[in-house]
Amino acid sequence: MDSVTFVGICAGILTTSSFLPQVIKIHRTKKTSDLSLAMFVVLAIGISLWIIYGILLGSLPILLANSVVFVLCIYLIVAKIRYG
Amino acid sequence: MDSVTFVGICAGILTTSSFLPQVIKIHRTKKTSDLSLAMFVVLAIGISLWIIYGILLGSLPILLANSVVFVLCIYLIVAKIRYG
Repeated sequence: MDSVTFVGICAGILTTSSFLPQVIKIHRTKKTSDLSLAMFVVLAIGISLWIIYGILLGSLPILLANSVVFVLCIYLIVAKIRYG
Repeated sequence: MDSVTFVGICAGILTTSSFLPQVIKIHRTKKTSDLSLAMFVVLAIGISLWIIYGILLGSLPILLANSVVFVLCIYLIVAKIRYG
């Protein structure tokens, strides 16, 4: 693995992992009132485009990281709709 | 501009824009209790690495998008520390 891909993978692991504390917090508290639904809806659409960009660019870090974030983002959208 | 860069720029605009509703919401309500501080701290570190990755890869969309998100992310961290 070249050093550029290594930096990308580290970046991907961190930005992907960052969504976990928020998912865990909401799963535990069932409270989402301070979260912006618009944020996570726009984010999910944007992440879908990053996935396409990653495929077109042949960038594995972009593809993998955004795929996981997309799933976590959908969880946050569903939680926000459910808990208000 | 080639089509790959165009998709990347659209992705960047959307994921960057997505942070704005959250920033506006917090600026208005001054409430951050449902937000995870760990999320935005880990995100800020990850985004720093994406910026480095964008520079190394020569990807303008990755570089620009993550630079703006980084600033918004710092705002959210400061707000979370301030409002609790």
